[in-house]
Amino acid sequence: MDDICPLDWRYGSEEMRKIFSREHVIETRMRVEIALLKALARLGVASEEDVKEVEEASKKVTIEEIDELEKKLGHDVMAMVVALAERAGEHGRFVHFGATSYDIVDTAYALMFKEALAIVKGKLIAVLDKLVEFSKKYGNTVMVGRTHGQHALPITLGFKFANYVYELSRSLERLQETEKRVVRGKISGAVGTMAAWDGYGLKVEELVMENLGLDPHPISTQVAPRDGFAELVSNLAILGSQLDRLALEIRELMRPEIGELKEGVGNRVGSSTMPQKENPVTAEKVSGLARVLRGLVVSELENIPLWHERDLTNSSSERIILSHVLIIIDEMLESTLEILENLVVDERNIEKNLKITNGLIMAESLMINLTLKGMARHKAHEIVSRLSKTVRSTGKTLEEVAMEDETVRKYMSPDEIRKSLDYTQYLGQVNALIGRAIEYYRRVLEGVNLKNVAVK
Amino acid sequence: MDDICPLDWRYGSEEMRKIFSREHVIETRMRVEIALLKALARLGVASEEDVKEVEEASKKVTIEEIDELEKKLGHDVMAMVVALAERAGEHGRFVHFGATSYDIVDTAYALMFKEALAIVKGKLIAVLDKLVEFSKKYGNTVMVGRTHGQHALPITLGFKFANYVYELSRSLERLQETEKRVVRGKISGAVGTMAAWDGYGLKVEELVMENLGLDPHPISTQVAPRDGFAELVSNLAILGSQLDRLALEIRELMRPEIGELKEGVGNRVGSSTMPQKENPVTAEKVSGLARVLRGLVVSELENIPLWHERDLTNSSSERIILSHVLIIIDEMLESTLEILENLVVDERNIEKNLKITNGLIMAESLMINLTLKGMARHKAHEIVSRLSKTVRSTGKTLEEVAMEDETVRKYMSPDEIRKSLDYTQYLGQVNALIGRAIEYYRRVLEGVNLKNVAVK
Amino acid sequence: MDDICPLDWRYGSEEMRKIFSREHVIETRMRVEIALLKALARLGVASEEDVKEVEEASKKVTIEEIDELEKKLGHDVMAMVVALAERAGEHGRFVHFGATSYDIVDTAYALMFKEALAIVKGKLIAVLDKLVEFSKKYGNTVMVGRTHGQHALPITLGFKFANYVYELSRSLERLQETEKRVVRGKISGAVGTMAAWDGYGLKVEELVMENLGLDPHPISTQVAPRDGFAELVSNLAILGSQLDRLALEIRELMRPEIGELKEGVGNRVGSSTMPQKENPVTAEKVSGLARVLRGLVVSELENIPLWHERDLTNSSSERIILSHVLIIIDEMLESTLEILENLVVDERNIEKNLKITNGLIMAESLMINLTLKGMARHKAHEIVSRLSKTVRSTGKTLEEVAMEDETVRKYMSPDEIRKSLDYTQYLGQVNALIGRAIEYYRRVLEGVNLKNVAVK
Amino acid sequence: MDDICPLDWRYGSEEMRKIFSREHVIETRMRVEIALLKALARLGVASEEDVKEVEEASKKVTIEEIDELEKKLGHDVMAMVVALAERAGEHGRFVHFGATSYDIVDTAYALMFKEALAIVKGKLIAVLDKLVEFSKKYGNTVMVGRTHGQHALPITLGFKFANYVYELSRSLERLQETEKRVVRGKISGAVGTMAAWDGYGLKVEELVMENLGLDPHPISTQVAPRDGFAELVSNLAILGSQLDRLALEIRELMRPEIGELKEGVGNRVGSSTMPQKENPVTAEKVSGLARVLRGLVVSELENIPLWHERDLTNSSSERIILSHVLIIIDEMLESTLEILENLVVDERNIEKNLKITNGLIMAESLMINLTLKGMARHKAHEIVSRLSKTVRSTGKTLEEVAMEDETVRKYMSPDEIRKSLDYTQYLGQVNALIGRAIEYYRRVLEGVNLKNVAVK
Repeated sequence: MDDICPLDWRYGSEEMRKIFSREHVIETRMRVEIALLKALARLGVASEEDVKEVEEASKKVTIEEIDELEKKLGHDVMAMVVALAERAGEHGRFVHFGATSYDIVDTAYALMFKEALAIVKGKLIAVLDKLVEFSKKYGNTVMVGRTHGQHALPITLGFKFANYVYELSRSLERLQETEKRVVRGKISGAVGTMAAWDGYGLKVEELVMENLGLDPHPISTQVAPRDGFAELVSNLAILGSQLDRLALEIRELMRPEIGELKEGVGNRVGSSTMPQKENPVTAEKVSGLARVLRGLVVSELENIPLWHERDLTNSSSERIILSHVLIIIDEMLESTLEILENLVVDERNIEKNLKITNGLIMAESLMINLTLKGMARHKAHEIVSRLSKTVRSTGKTLEEVAMEDETVRKYMSPDEIRKSLDYTQYLGQVNALIGRAIEYYRRVLEGVNLKNVAVK
Repeated sequence: MDDICPLDWRYGSEEMRKIFSREHVIETRMRVEIALLKALARLGVASEEDVKEVEEASKKVTIEEIDELEKKLGHDVMAMVVALAERAGEHGRFVHFGATSYDIVDTAYALMFKEALAIVKGKLIAVLDKLVEFSKKYGNTVMVGRTHGQHALPITLGFKFANYVYELSRSLERLQETEKRVVRGKISGAVGTMAAWDGYGLKVEELVMENLGLDPHPISTQVAPRDGFAELVSNLAILGSQLDRLALEIRELMRPEIGELKEGVGNRVGSSTMPQKENPVTAEKVSGLARVLRGLVVSELENIPLWHERDLTNSSSERIILSHVLIIIDEMLESTLEILENLVVDERNIEKNLKITNGLIMAESLMINLTLKGMARHKAHEIVSRLSKTVRSTGKTLEEVAMEDETVRKYMSPDEIRKSLDYTQYLGQVNALIGRAIEYYRRVLEGVNLKNVAVK
Repeated sequence: MDDICPLDWRYGSEEMRKIFSREHVIETRMRVEIALLKALARLGVASEEDVKEVEEASKKVTIEEIDELEKKLGHDVMAMVVALAERAGEHGRFVHFGATSYDIVDTAYALMFKEALAIVKGKLIAVLDKLVEFSKKYGNTVMVGRTHGQHALPITLGFKFANYVYELSRSLERLQETEKRVVRGKISGAVGTMAAWDGYGLKVEELVMENLGLDPHPISTQVAPRDGFAELVSNLAILGSQLDRLALEIRELMRPEIGELKEGVGNRVGSSTMPQKENPVTAEKVSGLARVLRGLVVSELENIPLWHERDLTNSSSERIILSHVLIIIDEMLESTLEILENLVVDERNIEKNLKITNGLIMAESLMINLTLKGMARHKAHEIVSRLSKTVRSTGKTLEEVAMEDETVRKYMSPDEIRKSLDYTQYLGQVNALIGRAIEYYRRVLEGVNLKNVAVK
Repeated sequence: MDDICPLDWRYGSEEMRKIFSREHVIETRMRVEIALLKALARLGVASEEDVKEVEEASKKVTIEEIDELEKKLGHDVMAMVVALAERAGEHGRFVHFGATSYDIVDTAYALMFKEALAIVKGKLIAVLDKLVEFSKKYGNTVMVGRTHGQHALPITLGFKFANYVYELSRSLERLQETEKRVVRGKISGAVGTMAAWDGYGLKVEELVMENLGLDPHPISTQVAPRDGFAELVSNLAILGSQLDRLALEIRELMRPEIGELKEGVGNRVGSSTMPQKENPVTAEKVSGLARVLRGLVVSELENIPLWHERDLTNSSSERIILSHVLIIIDEMLESTLEILENLVVDERNIEKNLKITNGLIMAESLMINLTLKGMARHKAHEIVSRLSKTVRSTGKTLEEVAMEDETVRKYMSPDEIRKSLDYTQYLGQVNALIGRAIEYYRRVLEGVNLKNVAVK
């Protein structure tokens, strides 16, 4: 009833929302506290009994209890520590020993990022697989290529999809690279020197990291360096902007005047007042959410220049930014997948549109052939440009106009003209290029440890 | 337990969070539907009985019911309309008649903005009142003015606060101006032509607006123009950045080496590991949240260029942006007020710091007096610059060094030197300027209808 | 040859570029210095002879000279002051007397903003006038209204333009309001107290402002408050995003499948390789430049939280931001005007497109009429939704399908059906709404002092 | 005189500015045209004579000539092509044969990015080397660590610098990774299919890339995918924000109340009116420019979602964005290097500040030792927190207060207390951690091909 943020109830998959739920955040932080306590027990500071009791206690601590304590203490991590320690009684005395809050917060973030990225990568791979499938399936479906929104030259629909295969593979590659910088634990105490663990800090860190399956930051201040967080957010915004591009592609090609691709819209209502409406609302949602990602990049970039060994200004903003960008990208990937799985390809309209410019999409080919027959390229450009104007003003086809043109006829025979204007023969290396795109994806995929991916 | 967004539970006052709760959003939208139905009844299209029954129904419709319908219909406003109409049975037939979803959504936004701005303005006025109080109270408390973080010239603490009075008054003025553009209803149908209300659309609009206490947009597409929304978001980001400036002021002056101002921190825990810590965490929170506001400006700016009579891309992003910016600014204003109410002014440190540069903060005064005595201003600059270096390298005071300098002595007597270096006498027009700042605020306040302000 | 930034040579009108040229910036700063000196002379500090000599000197100072001095002094304003004072010899001793660099820099900015805004407003008015003309001229040219890129309901082309009249009028109104906050002088010395002008600071300020035709900031730190600068930049970004929306409108409607509007492209080359291409490159330029404006908003927002009585971090960024946003908006306005002046309206395509959905754009009307005949609105929505699917699957018109439908026929006669589907009769209040848009513009225009506008 | 943008004359090194000068941009584009022509010659389409003549011509083409042609043709690349072809007469006929403008523009960008990144990396390595030197040199210089601007725990100055070593090494690593995605050529024709090179397109691409020393994009539309450009801009903004953090560190530690680090300011003028001023203006410039970088990230992110096989909206914005971000980062790196080379470390102030909190910076240590002696950690936190308040209110040292406290004395002997409060003994693993930071840098450096770096 009193929910506000749509990420709490509207957007994002269950599995992604769960990661950033208050409950899971606290669980993960307690998991780090316990890993620390275990390390201290291994090193003889705490006892195994302490570990056991605190682990037990961690199962009982409630959010309400922590909230209550936070009101008194004004510090959320300290509230959790006190709740945990008090519940463990005598055995709680080494809870959080030597640590600073951000040892816990940032190591927990690393664990949550790992989980979240597994989901993101899994869904991105599912999207890529679908795009690979389409690249192959429609590899020879000739359609008009468009630049500036204007008809340019023929391509194939598979070629169009293959470009997205390449583009999105680059995002997968980027996320892999980012992960190694941002999924790193930080157990180094209040200013990063490990001073409280008198001489055995490196050992504490090693044991905690081993327990949690993380690499540590080689050095840190009170916090993990924020450049990694900003990199994560901006790479997600880049991915989001690529999905925006794909969504935009579909929104445009679904215009009734074009009608080449369509969101399969099922039975949903398009408009509350216009019963005929079938709208690309899923794609529009993707385009809209990309804007929030782009905006939040600058917010996180501003978190890099923290004062000295850190100030707290990153805290409030990251409480919002980090959950939001990951749930948003999750929603966008889910939506993209849904769009692709239900995508309607209208091959009749695709073919129809190839012809609406009366052959003008083959103007380049005519110019190229004139050049090969001996005309200077820029002269050929001028002549074909002139012919194109005639096509537009008369409604004749480019073939007709070319046939009637004396200069053209000096260089080319009717048959040569005809052949030069056949768009099914002007597709260049589309198949080889599709192959290269898929190959790029395959190579990126090789670098992804599929065990760390939540397979869709 | 499964809350994610801190705006749902951590940040924002109850009264502001309530405005953007799902419940209130739906209530407000139903309020618009009913206003529309009443207008239709006044115009003889619907009956008074319809109005009564639908009003009754609106009290019973539940979010769960709407959610259930949305799953089937894929359209949240349509789901609400159907829920409302079905509950009203026979009498529901004119629910939403002639309207498009965004007649409801955008008019509801206008109502929520009005409520939210009343809170924002109320709290901003409370902050301003506190700053006015401080401007007067500390009008003669001499302190060092700092530029580039370096000591510059004396000011007074009241003068410092008075600058914030002026700066924040400008935000109050801006919000007033924005309100007249963004708090406007929109009842004009699917593409803004009012076509469905055959010839009586203007009358429908008039009656709805009268009922809701709003002015209408003179023209619109399917939606209210988004420039107003972007203006609101950017003006809130400007206000947020000003509060950031004030928070930064306090964070800096609370450094232990400076110690002039302090957040009154009560009993909260400063650090989970450093028991001595007293941190300006409220001010840091303010600075942090300002970053989210700055980021979201670009997200909303991107919502301006919608396609033709609108596309849906603003919808998903605004579900996030609009509630977030208003709850964030609310939290920031609350926090600022809390900081000001508990602010600790350490006059001893203020006085101490005036002296730590051995009089260098009066260098300008010496230069000015040398100029008045006949030296060229830029020559005087050179000489005093040289003397300043001597102060720094020898640890002597500027007075001592000036007294020993032959050139200076050629122009000024010892007494004149001494007088020119007395910082209590070099405060210019601080009191008149404080007065002007307060006067500016007073004039802005005159333009604010205090009835529309939620007084703090 | 060695130009880099396209604002130096490619974008922006001569008159706007001139304002932000190094030469004019320095001239304007010297103008402020002279106004200050004149005030000092009026107050008996300097002499009339000083004024005369310094004015003379100001005509001779060269940029090279200042650059040379800056290399030595590391301070650009100080370099100008020294250059000016030295050239004036004996008479230069009161140059810059009592002032801080930003008295000069910010007052010069105010003057340059005034000049620049006169140009911006002048061109915006020219754009608005053109849009008003089109709103009237095409007030009855029926065309399809589009939401989500899909056909929605009929509108008129004039109605479309009238929405832009309203939207852009709001920007004109915003700029007016911003101007009164940002076009303000600042003559208050190093920390804003006016200390150096011993007791007569307010008089100095008054005389300088009178001379320059500016109002002063009622109070300031070392600098004018940056919220005004941020407001200016964000309001220009809003205006830019609105021009982006208009450009996008044209880019979309120029698609060959739609062909309703066209940039009049003259003889320019569309593509270096595709001779047939006619691309909406001017509109695309407008859309592209809007992105730079949106980005720079966050840069200037970050300049608000300066330290204490100021730090210098705004300086380097503003050297870029301020000239850039004003020259960019100038280019965008010029381009928009050029587009509008050469806009090609293809009424045949406009009419053709009204029909391509076989009457589906009148689905709302049918639903409305069924409701008026006694069916519940949401039931009517369901039925017409079903009919629409039949239209799509069979290729029949909505009229045919409606005529054949038993339920519909129970409520409506053939004639009523036919009438309800006539799109020339379903335009609501377009003319009244166009009138309201123009009236809004007229009222905004009343508030603009046309003497301060560089008429186009 | 009429320069506007400070990147044209004020910011950036000669070598970086040269890369983005109009002259070099055109030269680079012609270099790509010639590489294409050579490929065509190798494949028997053009002749060796053509190559020779066009190469000759390229040396003579002037910007004025191109500008003149652009005015006529409205297309800058086409203007260059025509200029080149016409100068080569008969031999110009295969200039640009089969290519689209962005084959040239984007491949030229790849070459310019390569040159620019060589400079960026070279200067970043120089900064890193300096920081490594400082990390070692000051590895044992104890200073206070600060969190929230408050004194936290002792660190060493070398440890502080080592954190920057790690952070900036991550940027070097990121740039390496970005480079492999963004420094890629694109020779694939108007829509990316290579259609104009009938069957030998892959060969043309191979030969051009070989000639220019680039890898190609495996697939493309009319343009190289913009995610790479956005990645470049955001990674530069991250680097810029890190330099901002370092600049902020110095600006803060240069406050007169702190005085630990200082920009070596030489003889420059600090203020035009306050002769004593020594301001961290270089560091402030760095912080200011970072803001422009952050803003431009969103501008380039918006360039990712281009329409279909591309629209032109990226063109105008990238003319500004790309040169600007690279020249700005160059200026920032130069300035950072200058700051580091002239950095003044004031060890006396560093030592003095360690003591101003009367030992409170060792509060954690006392708590830790109490815990080790048997007290629960959170109880120890409470007690030491209480003691800290006493230190603050009485002005006694923490040692004195601890000695007097009965509870503490129950757990610790006077000697243990004394030892636990010795800050020279509470530095944890600083040296090992410094070592790890340097080792991280060393490993990143191994991946950098120093031949591709413009060594500073």
